[in-house]
Amino acid sequence: MSETPINLYSDTQTQPSPPMRQAMAEAPVGDEQRGEDPSVNRLCEMTAELLGKEAAVFMPSGTMCNQIAIHIHCRPGDEIIAHKSAHILNFEGGGTAAFSGAQIHGLAGDKGIFSIEDAQAAIRSKDRYNPVTRLIAIEQTANQGGGSVWPLEAVQALGALAARHGLAYHMDGARLLNAVVASATPAKAYAAPFDSLWVDLSKGLGCPVGAVLAGPTDFIEEAWRLKQRTGGAMRQAGIIAAAGIYALQHNVERLAEDHANARLLAEGLRNLPGITVDADAVETNIVFFDIAGTGMTAEAFCERLDQRGVILGGAGTRLRAVTHLDITRNDVERALDTIRDLVTEVAA
Amino acid sequence: MSETPINLYSDTQTQPSPPMRQAMAEAPVGDEQRGEDPSVNRLCEMTAELLGKEAAVFMPSGTMCNQIAIHIHCRPGDEIIAHKSAHILNFEGGGTAAFSGAQIHGLAGDKGIFSIEDAQAAIRSKDRYNPVTRLIAIEQTANQGGGSVWPLEAVQALGALAARHGLAYHMDGARLLNAVVASATPAKAYAAPFDSLWVDLSKGLGCPVGAVLAGPTDFIEEAWRLKQRTGGAMRQAGIIAAAGIYALQHNVERLAEDHANARLLAEGLRNLPGITVDADAVETNIVFFDIAGTGMTAEAFCERLDQRGVILGGAGTRLRAVTHLDITRNDVERALDTIRDLVTEVAA
Amino acid sequence: MSETPINLYSDTQTQPSPPMRQAMAEAPVGDEQRGEDPSVNRLCEMTAELLGKEAAVFMPSGTMCNQIAIHIHCRPGDEIIAHKSAHILNFEGGGTAAFSGAQIHGLAGDKGIFSIEDAQAAIRSKDRYNPVTRLIAIEQTANQGGGSVWPLEAVQALGALAARHGLAYHMDGARLLNAVVASATPAKAYAAPFDSLWVDLSKGLGCPVGAVLAGPTDFIEEAWRLKQRTGGAMRQAGIIAAAGIYALQHNVERLAEDHANARLLAEGLRNLPGITVDADAVETNIVFFDIAGTGMTAEAFCERLDQRGVILGGAGTRLRAVTHLDITRNDVERALDTIRDLVTEVAA
Amino acid sequence: MSETPINLYSDTQTQPSPPMRQAMAEAPVGDEQRGEDPSVNRLCEMTAELLGKEAAVFMPSGTMCNQIAIHIHCRPGDEIIAHKSAHILNFEGGGTAAFSGAQIHGLAGDKGIFSIEDAQAAIRSKDRYNPVTRLIAIEQTANQGGGSVWPLEAVQALGALAARHGLAYHMDGARLLNAVVASATPAKAYAAPFDSLWVDLSKGLGCPVGAVLAGPTDFIEEAWRLKQRTGGAMRQAGIIAAAGIYALQHNVERLAEDHANARLLAEGLRNLPGITVDADAVETNIVFFDIAGTGMTAEAFCERLDQRGVILGGAGTRLRAVTHLDITRNDVERALDTIRDLVTEVAA
Repeated sequence: MSETPINLYSDTQTQPSPPMRQAMAEAPVGDEQRGEDPSVNRLCEMTAELLGKEAAVFMPSGTMCNQIAIHIHCRPGDEIIAHKSAHILNFEGGGTAAFSGAQIHGLAGDKGIFSIEDAQAAIRSKDRYNPVTRLIAIEQTANQGGGSVWPLEAVQALGALAARHGLAYHMDGARLLNAVVASATPAKAYAAPFDSLWVDLSKGLGCPVGAVLAGPTDFIEEAWRLKQRTGGAMRQAGIIAAAGIYALQHNVERLAEDHANARLLAEGLRNLPGITVDADAVETNIVFFDIAGTGMTAEAFCERLDQRGVILGGAGTRLRAVTHLDITRNDVERALDTIRDLVTEVAA
Repeated sequence: MSETPINLYSDTQTQPSPPMRQAMAEAPVGDEQRGEDPSVNRLCEMTAELLGKEAAVFMPSGTMCNQIAIHIHCRPGDEIIAHKSAHILNFEGGGTAAFSGAQIHGLAGDKGIFSIEDAQAAIRSKDRYNPVTRLIAIEQTANQGGGSVWPLEAVQALGALAARHGLAYHMDGARLLNAVVASATPAKAYAAPFDSLWVDLSKGLGCPVGAVLAGPTDFIEEAWRLKQRTGGAMRQAGIIAAAGIYALQHNVERLAEDHANARLLAEGLRNLPGITVDADAVETNIVFFDIAGTGMTAEAFCERLDQRGVILGGAGTRLRAVTHLDITRNDVERALDTIRDLVTEVAA
Repeated sequence: MSETPINLYSDTQTQPSPPMRQAMAEAPVGDEQRGEDPSVNRLCEMTAELLGKEAAVFMPSGTMCNQIAIHIHCRPGDEIIAHKSAHILNFEGGGTAAFSGAQIHGLAGDKGIFSIEDAQAAIRSKDRYNPVTRLIAIEQTANQGGGSVWPLEAVQALGALAARHGLAYHMDGARLLNAVVASATPAKAYAAPFDSLWVDLSKGLGCPVGAVLAGPTDFIEEAWRLKQRTGGAMRQAGIIAAAGIYALQHNVERLAEDHANARLLAEGLRNLPGITVDADAVETNIVFFDIAGTGMTAEAFCERLDQRGVILGGAGTRLRAVTHLDITRNDVERALDTIRDLVTEVAA
Repeated sequence: MSETPINLYSDTQTQPSPPMRQAMAEAPVGDEQRGEDPSVNRLCEMTAELLGKEAAVFMPSGTMCNQIAIHIHCRPGDEIIAHKSAHILNFEGGGTAAFSGAQIHGLAGDKGIFSIEDAQAAIRSKDRYNPVTRLIAIEQTANQGGGSVWPLEAVQALGALAARHGLAYHMDGARLLNAVVASATPAKAYAAPFDSLWVDLSKGLGCPVGAVLAGPTDFIEEAWRLKQRTGGAMRQAGIIAAAGIYALQHNVERLAEDHANARLLAEGLRNLPGITVDADAVETNIVFFDIAGTGMTAEAFCERLDQRGVILGGAGTRLRAVTHLDITRNDVERALDTIRDLVTEVAA
């Protein structure tokens, strides 16, 4: 393959565009640890405003946003209610227990979304034996659930449950802006019930690095202290924050294209032999599909596609394709052609 | 009620018998921290011998045995495979995460017993995102599973799985001796595949305090260091260890009576209106039964029984009765009469 | 040696006396985890009353009292001000960092006692880089300082400093009752400024096992939860608590004899060739002395004394002798004779 | 002040130069988590080569390098030997205890350098009470010691001590390259005895963000896993890594200018009334001086200088000035003039 491959592995694969690079190259910067980086400060103000929160802090990654928020909300021995497919439970290296001494009660539920009833049943009574239930955390959109959107009503009902029981409420908003665009719901509306939440810059927004954690002023001041302790405090971070400013200005509304492309991809896959996909379930930019009917493993399937210039990820017989800023409608059509060729050959 | 109540709340409720008290009063003692307490030393030797392990250490509780074993086997960020009803997950105050920074992957499975297949599927591949699967832990008997006995073959197969994947293997043997007596299987046979395990003295064995953790010599030396750090190191602990020696000599075989009494209780309950119980599932000294059919809550049921001199525990509509050293066949018959009277009144 | 050796190694070496054993054998007991052990309850009430605190909880050791109190007062990343010779820094296996994630700022100061000025200077300003100073902890008496008594005025001044800076204040009162008797100061007076403190039962009081932690009701309820999580919760612990009740009734005032014996020992050692001791510094039951002048190491010295029936501990050329319930005035005189013989032989 | 102030607060204050910005803007990038960022990969290779280690990993900060290295070397309850002024003890928010459960034994010693003898004496014997001595860590140059250089012989002798006792050996090389240039000693020579070490990019090298941790291949693979867990894993981090490549190519040798400027500053300060400085102690780019003789506090002194366009930091009566890439010889002369004017006015 001499052409650039069509990289559907993840929306983290975006390359900064020329104007985004220019914004970084020209960014006014200072020492963010002294509050003197104008680009970092502006990005944090923009994000706090977007989410309707008092303050925000720039972090090198969404994982750090999650882990620091958990550390502030929880003490050792506490328990967190989350979906069993949650990033904090499965993809952060056991960090929740390691950093905060907290355990996660993973609930079931279709498409990465658990019910209010199950959450309520998971809240432990207070005695000397039980862990202390302290926090409810959700992921918007639910990545392993197929990029599904937590409906605003469910978000609010869960927030009311948390409030009634004195629990903190946190959103891993890695793809919150996808939910915002897909559901035509303002980010502030989703954010309102949460004590803390963050948005990722390095996924659909197309930035190279970073995420922004938002919440009340005292929460963010404590998050700053923990960012320092965790080694997330940088110096002239405005270089990368400038990409975030650019992205918030230019790359939010266009997420709708990614969603349309994902739907296009899912509908195209639906007709291919050996492939099972629930195209109607595709709400944002993530498409999960199953290739059991082809007789191939995900590993073999990905390897053969890779040779033909299409990059996907998967395990078992389940594959994931993610559309993003660097994927055009034409790329999706070409990817579909490539997959069709492969499964046809295999079926032959 | 002027009579002593019939306490079926737990086998932890036993009172030390007069000869056990005498054994404690006459125990030769010394400073256990210097290895100079002859009663502690003897108890540890007896337990190591019973379990076929190189060495053992006396602890103030089974919870400390679990937490120290986990701390030795795991590093922060590691993951433990256990049943979702496990004591380490639900009744140790979140200690596994708090002390060792490890998270627990709780598996489903009838009667507190999970399958080899589910355990195998839960072992994570090694990458930078996953927690590191490090330990498989089982509970013998499975308390929340109704005192069910892990069959020797399952214990061995799980041990082979652990060995193939380089995982440590730990048994919470709080009621291992109940399993030994119920299944006529030597303790050594059950213990053989484990890197660490412990037996409780303060449950069916009738001692006031303590548990004994066993394993290889270097593991036990490290456990001693952690016992010191955890505040479990005592001084003339021979006073309470002497009860353990007495119990190992006198109170093991008689666990068969507790099992017969539990079966008697379950069969009696089976015929009562509004009560559901799987009497055939009662393998040892624990009887779970459901009172949904009576229209009462567990709380109300327990309170009314308590007034009539029978003590049980429960939540929702599920109750637990546990037979032990201080419960005779006659006590069980009287308890059944009392429960029959209550449910009959309620049904009237 | 056919005689019982004279064991000056530590006041932890006491054997329970016949009447203490009888008190244990006859103790009314119950399940302490359900609040139903009358002996445990009584011991806790007696201790709370003695120290003028709202509540108390029985623990298997003083180390657990320290570690649990620290865990309640501190969050990960906090800093504790203590003497550099403190038990929590040197003899608890690094537990403060391991369990609570807190670091200890060890201050210098003669006889295990640091100055108000040094404590004040050690309080860190609040910024994003510093650990958060959270707790001041002292040891009464200061073990490695030679059993020296923290004067009441210093205890109060340090408490005022803690209060001014919003810091918690904790006393490791392993030998508080020695200080009480030596200074004729009520325990309540010493205890008043502290948020938490504990007394040991297994040192000068002559019990086999245990310590009692006291403080406000909500602190003790949280301590109970952590005792459970830490594996310090026992069942019919009244057996050993009964020894504590007996000791508080019979063994407090007699600590004066231990102090007189320690002074006698120190004055006797002062005149021996090769031995240096500050007899005037002996305030309670601990005597440190130096044998550099004998040309022997502590190890050799202890070994040779051990062969002659006198047990001491030490390192380098510094030895420690501790008087206690099982050491009579006659034992001290015999020990002095034995030491005199040894140093005379060596000098010859 | 309309002019740009002369910022001597720290060498972290440098702004990326135009060619460094250009290097970032043009950097080839990819997903560093998949090993596909060519700029990150090249920076790591260059650093590993510079330090003579097998591998290296890019981190968002030096604090993360320290904390991750400590986490790999230590288990909870371990002890680290370091200087009492060490960054890991005083400026990382208590992270060593919080993340790794390890405590730090802070040694005294002039200029931030402790002796082999004191290190040896601090190694604890192995028993059940002691923390386990596990790691020796030094800081090159010693920041709070005035930028002093650990001599190669001392570095080697300490390494030999660590090796003899089976201890790990770690260098916080935040300003290692200053030591390299000042002492004309190759970085590899300094690095050779260490199990792990890192260099900072955002100090004298003038980059906006980052540090690089080096060590054996398996250590770096584990560091990568912990970088992920800690939230230090980024995506197209090549943007900022490109600044590091540029700096290693262009900004190392020129550190000599900073050292000459620091010496010039110190010698100038030596002659000013009310100021005390040990100019001969200035080995690299850091100048500590005392203003007690002026009657001003550091706070007042800094505030008044700030109004005149010179930025310094300090506490009590001790000030620190740091020279760097953005400070010319002329800046130093102007800063001296400004300080001279201030102290002359105050003295008048």
